[in-house]
Formats: sequence, structure tokens, C-alpha cells
Amino acid sequence: MGFRIAVVGSGAIGSYYGAKLAHAGSDVHFLMRGDLSVVRRDGIFVRGEGENFRIAKINCYNSTSDIGPCDLVIVAIKATSNHDLVDLVPPLLHEETMVLTLQNGLGNEEFLAGHFGAQRILGGLCFIAVDRHSKTEVERYAYGQVILGEFGRPAQPRTHGVGAEFTRASVRCTVTDDLALERWRKLIWNIPFNGLSIVAGEIDTAAIVGDKNLRALTLDLMEEVIGAANKCGHPLPKEAWRKHMERSETMSGYKPSTLQDWEAGKPLEIEAIWGEPVRRAAAAGAKMPRTEMIYELLKKLDQVRRSQ
Amino acid sequence: MGFRIAVVGSGAIGSYYGAKLAHAGSDVHFLMRGDLSVVRRDGIFVRGEGENFRIAKINCYNSTSDIGPCDLVIVAIKATSNHDLVDLVPPLLHEETMVLTLQNGLGNEEFLAGHFGAQRILGGLCFIAVDRHSKTEVERYAYGQVILGEFGRPAQPRTHGVGAEFTRASVRCTVTDDLALERWRKLIWNIPFNGLSIVAGEIDTAAIVGDKNLRALTLDLMEEVIGAANKCGHPLPKEAWRKHMERSETMSGYKPSTLQDWEAGKPLEIEAIWGEPVRRAAAAGAKMPRTEMIYELLKKLDQVRRSQ
Repeated sequence: MGFRIAVVGSGAIGSYYGAKLAHAGSDVHFLMRGDLSVVRRDGIFVRGEGENFRIAKINCYNSTSDIGPCDLVIVAIKATSNHDLVDLVPPLLHEETMVLTLQNGLGNEEFLAGHFGAQRILGGLCFIAVDRHSKTEVERYAYGQVILGEFGRPAQPRTHGVGAEFTRASVRCTVTDDLALERWRKLIWNIPFNGLSIVAGEIDTAAIVGDKNLRALTLDLMEEVIGAANKCGHPLPKEAWRKHMERSETMSGYKPSTLQDWEAGKPLEIEAIWGEPVRRAAAAGAKMPRTEMIYELLKKLDQVRRSQ
Repeated sequence: MGFRIAVVGSGAIGSYYGAKLAHAGSDVHFLMRGDLSVVRRDGIFVRGEGENFRIAKINCYNSTSDIGPCDLVIVAIKATSNHDLVDLVPPLLHEETMVLTLQNGLGNEEFLAGHFGAQRILGGLCFIAVDRHSKTEVERYAYGQVILGEFGRPAQPRTHGVGAEFTRASVRCTVTDDLALERWRKLIWNIPFNGLSIVAGEIDTAAIVGDKNLRALTLDLMEEVIGAANKCGHPLPKEAWRKHMERSETMSGYKPSTLQDWEAGKPLEIEAIWGEPVRRAAAAGAKMPRTEMIYELLKKLDQVRRSQ
């Protein structure tokens, strides 16, 4: 029997990377809740620059018990639904099963470690602009690379094994010895752009960097994140904002995932992206006044919206 | 000839205080742009706890040339229309005319002083919850007191004279020797509440103080204002926030003027309430990161809204 992979969460991220792996011949099994008949009939189409393919036969299931034990579980649900994993994951586990979270923000590895054991847990950072148009169609607009790492320890042979699986599927993939550092590095982008895209009036990244005052505010936020990361023991260089800013200035306007969720009326990953960093920074004595303000505004905006 | 008063700007503030003065027998002349026939026919009704009256005969005009020179010009237009005053005010001036701005925020006295001479200028702070329902009806929900002062100098005999005019009209009125200090003191309230009422999702003061996180953010903002005032040479005590917070906790939910403007699609007094304080603080080396963020968010929200 080959290397079995389960994908839990079939939004844009789960569908895209799962389909890529399946397309390369990996043995991928998708958990999909709701009606599966369309996916069973049509498969999944993947579109993007340099790739246009269809997986005709998708192994999809309503229940993880129907999937059974796998070697790798890819977690790609929204962090706001993490509590569902407590029941969803156990049927997928054998003694050596790895659990890889591709979720955003901080705290997901810790959550999984608490429930399923730290030694199983890996994390991946996805740098991708992707949207799922329907259950059977996912489109990648830009990027796609993944950074993989182990939870709380340097890369292991198995980490490189998972990386090789992604690489074989034409996903640009690197392995890091310091996953936590990379998580903070990604927040340099997510904290300002995902946040401002909502609180500044539902605007995309081009509108943010194109306004000189918002660009300055973005920089202030990036500096807060870098300062907090350092206080928390993750030595991001002071200039780490530069690459993020340059990338955003050259890419065409993009709606960050949280704005996409907001527009679709879906739950927002507020705690993973803002709440947990703010709490860790506070515990380490770092000040993040602007990040904290985005955090409070998003919570209230979300609450007001849900009460309407 | 008695003491002639012109009221320039007949929104809620101008209509209310002008009507109060007229009701007490002062010689009040209103500049009102647009159709005057309804006001000429119906007068102005004032409603509020302990007062319900109608001024049957309103002296109202389309042009300040028709009013002519007055002893006191009360400026009550939105600060966003200050440029209109350059043409509106001169016909109202004689050698000794006082110009009293009842506008919000910082910078209005300076603007008037630059155009009409510093020696003419007084400022007043209105602590009032008031709404104009129509051209002929204004309702006071709470408070009403006014603090009067001279621009850039202590109170003069004439300041007390103007105060006496208000007092005679049953407006609680005190005179201050330090108008600039009182302007900053009022900002302790306006900067957080007017701002958060919009950026946190169109909510009233009760929703702000009723949410423990937003209340904490309000306090942070108040401390920024007090710190900036001190750096700018206006010695507000560290505890100056307390009275403002207590007042907001006991008053029933109220929509700050900027939220009223926002909901009505009117221009927002962003520069007077946030922009000018932020600039003065920066020049004095004071940090106001949260205030600055509200400032930037409001500008962008307003811009996005106007472009839709």
C-alpha cells in the first residue's frame, strides 16, 4: 500500500493542494461535507497560469471513518472550525500518521498537538492567491509555494519526505528548521493586509499600498509584528518587512482571504491572525497598539454584522 | 440699536443656540441657504427636556449682505465648509465684531484668525446631544452647556458679556481663561467616541462602553489624547479621562455627531477632530498611534464611500 493522504477541509487551499497531489499520482482522499454527487460526477478542475487540468475521479467522503487511517492528514479547514477536528481526525490516525496544518496564523499546531500529540504535527505556510469558485473548480491567481516545518523541532527526514511529495506534484516547496519563525514572518503580511482590507472599507491590496497614508500605516503594523516576534524569541530581521511590501507593490490588487471570507459572510480567522499574536506579544511585554486595534475592530465589526 | 447677532450655519447647533437666544429676546439673524419659505412660514420649534417653544418670526436670509454688520457672529457650519466663510463673514463685520466659533475640534479659531484677525475670535465648546429633524425643528436630547473662551488669551470683559447673553437665554455657560486646554479636554471624548462609532461598525456610545474590549481601547485613546495635550503644552491631568468615561457610561446610547454625519452621507469633520490633533502631537513629539489609525481609516472609509 502506498502513501495515503487525507485532506480535511475542501475550501480553496484543500482543494488546490489536494488536487495537485492527486494529479501527480498521490493517493488522496478528500473529506467533503454536504452533497458529493457533483464532485463525483465532474471531478475537480484546477486552473491557473501554466496549469489547467481536471481530476476526473475524486475520492471523496462524507465521513473520515469512511477514509480510515492515512499516513498524512492535511488540515485545511478554517481555524474557526478547529473544534470539529476533535472528532474528525481520530479515524484517520494510525501510529505514525503525520498531521499537517496548512491553516493561517498562530495556534493551530498547538491545538492539534494538544489533541493528537505533538510528535505528529507539522505546519505548512501557503503563499498563494487562490479562490474556489465551486465545489468542482478552483483557480490559482498567483504564487503557490509552500514552506513546511515540524512543530517545535527542526526538520526531520519525514519533513523532507512530505516536501518531496509536494515537489513531485509541481508545488514549489521548501522545508524550514524553524516553523514558528516562518509563521511570524507570514504575519508581517497577513496582519496589515488582511486587517486593513476590511477595516479600511473593503479594499484590496492595491488600494492599500496605493494610498500613501495606508502604506505608512501598513509599515507601522509590519514593524509591530517584527518587534513582537523578536520579543517572543523569533529573531526576524528589522528589514523583514521590505520583501513583503515590495511583493505587494508589484502584484496586482488581490483580496486577502479574510476579506474574501467577509464578503462571503463566512467566519473570520480573527483569533489565529490577530488574537493569538496580540496575546503572545502581551505576554512577552511587546506593544502592538495598532494590531490590537485591528483585532478589536474586527471582532466588533463581525459581531455587529452577525447581529444584523 | 441693541446687540446684533448673526448665526452662520443653521444645522443642529446653530439652530438650537440661535433659537434659544432669539427666544430670550436677543436680536438674532440666521443665514440659511436654500429655500427659506418654510422657515418664514413656520418658524423654528425647539424641543427638549424642560423646553418646548416655537420662534414664530425668524429673521432668516440667503445672504450675509442682507444681514449686514453685527456685534457677534456665531459660526456653526461644519468645519469641512470653512472655506465658504472667507466670503460669508466680511459683510457681517464692523470694527468691533466678535466672531465666535462653536465648531468641533482644532484649527477653527486659527482659520478665522488668519482671515479676520485674531483679536475678533472667540471659541465655544458645546456639550450637547442635539439633532435637527428639519429646517424648522430641532431637538435637544441631553446637556446643552457651553464653555466660552478667547482665542490665544484669557477671558476678557467681552467674553463675559457674550456669556451673559447665553445665560440670559437659559443656556448653562461658563467662561474659561484657557480655551485651547478646553478644546483638548473635549477631544478626550470626541476622538474615541466619534471615531469608534464609525470604524467599529456604526455603533452608538452605549455599544462602545458596553463592550469591555472597546471600552479598554477607548481608554487607550483617551490616554493618547491626554499625553499629546500635555506634550503640546496643555496640562490636562492624567485622570482627565475619568469624567468623560463616567458620563458615557451613565448616558443612554447616543450617536456622536460624526456618526450622524456618516449616516446622513454628509462630509465628516475628520481634519478638525483627528487630523489637526495628530499633526500637532507629531510636531510636539507625542505618539498617538491609535488616534492616527482612526484618522487614516476614516479618511479611507470616507473616500471609498464617496467613490461608490
